[in-house]
Amino acid sequence: MAKLVSNKQVILRDYVSGRYPTESDMYVKTSNISLKVPLVQGQGEGPRNVVLVKNLYLSCDPMMRFLIMDTSHYKMSKYDYCTPGSPICGYGVAKVLDSSNPEFKEGDLVWGLTRWEEYSFITNTESLIKIQHTDVPLSYYTGILGMPGKSAYAGFFEVCTPKKGDYVFVSAASGAVGQLVGQFAKLAGCYVVGSAGSKEKVDLLKNNLGFDEAFNYKEEHDLNAALKRYFPQGIDVYFENVGGDMLEAVLLNMREHGRIAICGMISQYNLPEPQGIKNLLQIAFKRLHIHGFTHRDYDHIVPKYLDFVLPYIRQGKVVYVEDIVEGLENGPAALVGLFTGRNFGKQVIALAHQ
Amino acid sequence: MAKLVSNKQVILRDYVSGRYPTESDMYVKTSNISLKVPLVQGQGEGPRNVVLVKNLYLSCDPMMRFLIMDTSHYKMSKYDYCTPGSPICGYGVAKVLDSSNPEFKEGDLVWGLTRWEEYSFITNTESLIKIQHTDVPLSYYTGILGMPGKSAYAGFFEVCTPKKGDYVFVSAASGAVGQLVGQFAKLAGCYVVGSAGSKEKVDLLKNNLGFDEAFNYKEEHDLNAALKRYFPQGIDVYFENVGGDMLEAVLLNMREHGRIAICGMISQYNLPEPQGIKNLLQIAFKRLHIHGFTHRDYDHIVPKYLDFVLPYIRQGKVVYVEDIVEGLENGPAALVGLFTGRNFGKQVIALAHQ
Repeated sequence: MAKLVSNKQVILRDYVSGRYPTESDMYVKTSNISLKVPLVQGQGEGPRNVVLVKNLYLSCDPMMRFLIMDTSHYKMSKYDYCTPGSPICGYGVAKVLDSSNPEFKEGDLVWGLTRWEEYSFITNTESLIKIQHTDVPLSYYTGILGMPGKSAYAGFFEVCTPKKGDYVFVSAASGAVGQLVGQFAKLAGCYVVGSAGSKEKVDLLKNNLGFDEAFNYKEEHDLNAALKRYFPQGIDVYFENVGGDMLEAVLLNMREHGRIAICGMISQYNLPEPQGIKNLLQIAFKRLHIHGFTHRDYDHIVPKYLDFVLPYIRQGKVVYVEDIVEGLENGPAALVGLFTGRNFGKQVIALAHQ
Repeated sequence: MAKLVSNKQVILRDYVSGRYPTESDMYVKTSNISLKVPLVQGQGEGPRNVVLVKNLYLSCDPMMRFLIMDTSHYKMSKYDYCTPGSPICGYGVAKVLDSSNPEFKEGDLVWGLTRWEEYSFITNTESLIKIQHTDVPLSYYTGILGMPGKSAYAGFFEVCTPKKGDYVFVSAASGAVGQLVGQFAKLAGCYVVGSAGSKEKVDLLKNNLGFDEAFNYKEEHDLNAALKRYFPQGIDVYFENVGGDMLEAVLLNMREHGRIAICGMISQYNLPEPQGIKNLLQIAFKRLHIHGFTHRDYDHIVPKYLDFVLPYIRQGKVVYVEDIVEGLENGPAALVGLFTGRNFGKQVIALAHQ
């Protein structure tokens, strides 16, 4: 019988719908856990496909907003949703301590869907990907080398079908996905402008991430006018992360045959009901293509993406800005902060470094 | 010097914005016209590329709503817009009486953009297409063989990329375009449901046009529930003609990877401002593809479309329902009636039969 160790957890108190989440929607609790994949009573063998991991880095992602709400109105397939009274679920980087799944063994490093706790039994191992490259920061597998990186690569190159010289606009441009879309757009020979919510973020975009221009949307009382200023010729490609007023203004500024990739609409997630968008006739007038997408449809491009991005990372030609807080107990504030823009770059929670 | 003949015209009184057009927005006037392409004074030859036509059939199309409004808010390229004090412009079928354009000669039958008057000088001849097949009703070149037919064919086969067995929904399904989309969907092996605004139109769809099901949207107080009733599996393809509440409900009922072709949004054209659509997050959740399109991008498919549709017309396998009123003076009521659903099928105004 393996010894019990304490297991700190962040528990969802209750579903959060129609409002901003707060720290008090979660609480920290300490349980005990046996660091062995458990034997099934009376059968003499462990259940199959269970992986016990030590969580190293946990990821704060806007899409987690849907995992903590009552999703009867939103039908999203294939996700593990959070349950009140259980730990928050989300992406993370972890080390395998024990496994009854032949694909994973003790010592493996993995990224995928896990739980907000020090140690997790993962039974749904479909999302777990073994980490092969450890010469880059492990935390990158919550960001540039994980789900957000895959989203940026698939969303920009596969969904937006960019051409050299295209005018590209990215909202939430200093976020986990946006900062990559902007850099990928520059690599593709596009002109790229980003919007973000503070002077510091705008400076980051222009001075460190290679955006041609950037603006603070909170200081623009007329987003339509702001976009006309930065895109006098109009926008060919819009990478949509925010929705609401920004989408409304973008529609007025799209060029004919423009493409909009809808990755997310973070401005809408905490409202009692979403804002109505009025400029949809522009889709017909300008023959726009609007595609919703999710990284989950692009598992097959991960090897190609890693071949593409790892050399750029190693050469310093693509950079990645992380906002790392230490300690699980700081997780609730970090997650809540995503929705007020408190994070500066990709929000990560570090639990242990190996 | 050619003799002058009288030329009855329907004149736009003033731009119509933010409300339903009424008959009194137009008036009938009689001018005189010389039935010869005029000579340019002192040069001894006529201006090039002018075609004088006798208008035979005029087309009432929802898109004409944009031609009679002040379009500073709506940027649509390449159209001839109406000017207050001048005849309404729109599509029609006409016979060439005289021409200084070498591509057209006296006696040619053409369809394309013309004016609401008995005789027109057409200087912008780009939209004119010579009619080659006269064993079908000439009026069909305002509908099934003209702009609406091209829109239905391009929109359904090129934009919606239908597959056999797809669940297809068409709004304004008894209209000039919708009635064709439904029939094309059946030819493609799809299951197709249409919505329309009266019992008679619903009966037409089910009994004469081969739709699998149809419903009267005016009798449904919950469009979401209606769509769930007709599409318990969800919708793969939505051919959008109406916008507003119907689009809102459709978004909730789309299947993953569904396609929406936006042909028009007639419910929105007469409002002070368009309705806001709230369910756009469904685009991301379900990875929808939404494409605006216009027939103007599909000139190249006209020969292919005629090869496809003419045999079906001759065999009676595709039918086309027209609502033909006689006389230019009945034009304003016919045009206005489009926006209240008065028309039963494609609305045409017959001026002369040859």
